[in-house]
Amino acid sequence: MSTLSLAIHVRARSGPGVLHELTGVIARHRGDISSVEIVERGPEASRVTFEIEAPLPHDALLAELRAADSVLALDVVETFSRVYGKRVIIVGGGAQVGQVAIGAISEADRHNIRGEHISVDTIPLVGEVPLAEAVRAVALLPRARALLLAGALMGGSIETAVREVRALGIVVISLNRAGSAPEAADLVVSDPVQAGVMAVMAVADTASFNLGRLKRRVF
Amino acid sequence: MSTLSLAIHVRARSGPGVLHELTGVIARHRGDISSVEIVERGPEASRVTFEIEAPLPHDALLAELRAADSVLALDVVETFSRVYGKRVIIVGGGAQVGQVAIGAISEADRHNIRGEHISVDTIPLVGEVPLAEAVRAVALLPRARALLLAGALMGGSIETAVREVRALGIVVISLNRAGSAPEAADLVVSDPVQAGVMAVMAVADTASFNLGRLKRRVF
Repeated sequence: MSTLSLAIHVRARSGPGVLHELTGVIARHRGDISSVEIVERGPEASRVTFEIEAPLPHDALLAELRAADSVLALDVVETFSRVYGKRVIIVGGGAQVGQVAIGAISEADRHNIRGEHISVDTIPLVGEVPLAEAVRAVALLPRARALLLAGALMGGSIETAVREVRALGIVVISLNRAGSAPEAADLVVSDPVQAGVMAVMAVADTASFNLGRLKRRVF
Repeated sequence: MSTLSLAIHVRARSGPGVLHELTGVIARHRGDISSVEIVERGPEASRVTFEIEAPLPHDALLAELRAADSVLALDVVETFSRVYGKRVIIVGGGAQVGQVAIGAISEADRHNIRGEHISVDTIPLVGEVPLAEAVRAVALLPRARALLLAGALMGGSIETAVREVRALGIVVISLNRAGSAPEAADLVVSDPVQAGVMAVMAVADTASFNLGRLKRRVF
């Protein structure tokens, strides 16, 4: 039995139980949900997307979803992984955060032209507590692969958060700045543009660069 | 009966039916799911986050989720809306896409310091079909508010896609570049840094700027 990815966009009635109804239909057709997002929540109707690995053909699954009580409309769409791909997340504030983004975006552009799909998501933030929260939340973001610490002063609970997300498989690259967080990173880079470039190289399949093979950890 | 937002991070067995089980528990406790993300999918275990509006107290809901067949571990976490906030999405390729990001990130930094939560997500892309797909997908991204078109040449199916996402409530700002897509945008800006700044101003509650009150559409 062959399975194939299917991405759908559903307009459904709002309220408790709707996701339970939709996921029930999908489970009955032996569909494994790889992604689900509630795109918009209105008082009357909501919009939800699903990416599903499901046995072929998909006709019966789609027909039963369209017939579900809560479903108002359903379209088959492109998958997010194909459109937006891997995510590099940049956190930090001030002038340098934009320079880190310039490096990462320029390098992602070069790889995406050759068939990669890498997005660069930046959240400008200052302060130990907001930064530590943002670092922790990276481990909860779908498709996030690398985190770039672009603050001027990063320590305390940020360092703890960095160790936590590294343990969950996120690559962490830090600017060579004051505070203890850089010590906890996989890689420490002084030049902000180069920090952005190296983060994208570290996650690009089109790059011949392997973080594990570097002889130095600070650049 | 008062309700309160609850964000949880669940480690669960992988496979069909898991989301159906979890959403069933949430629905039984009259929880309304505002956000759900499958963060990681492994062969044995997966990680899923939920944001739920649920009646107080949450103890019985949390206890029943922890006891569910598929649940291996459960933590209460911070909500994404509080950490990452509204999203401004930038698409396009080449030198100018980084300059647009610089403007947006610098302006978001200024607003976030005053209590806003705005992220700037950039996907460097070239070509009519990939750009049109990325534009359409913006309407499916949670928390996306504004789209910035930062390509050098944007027309054909990109224009159609821009009209579709504007109809779904996304603010579209385009560089003043060749092609028909700028004609379909809410606002057309020649300078890339200023385009980024204006997109963030358009979605920031901390900005005294209202797109609807502008007397000109092209800058």
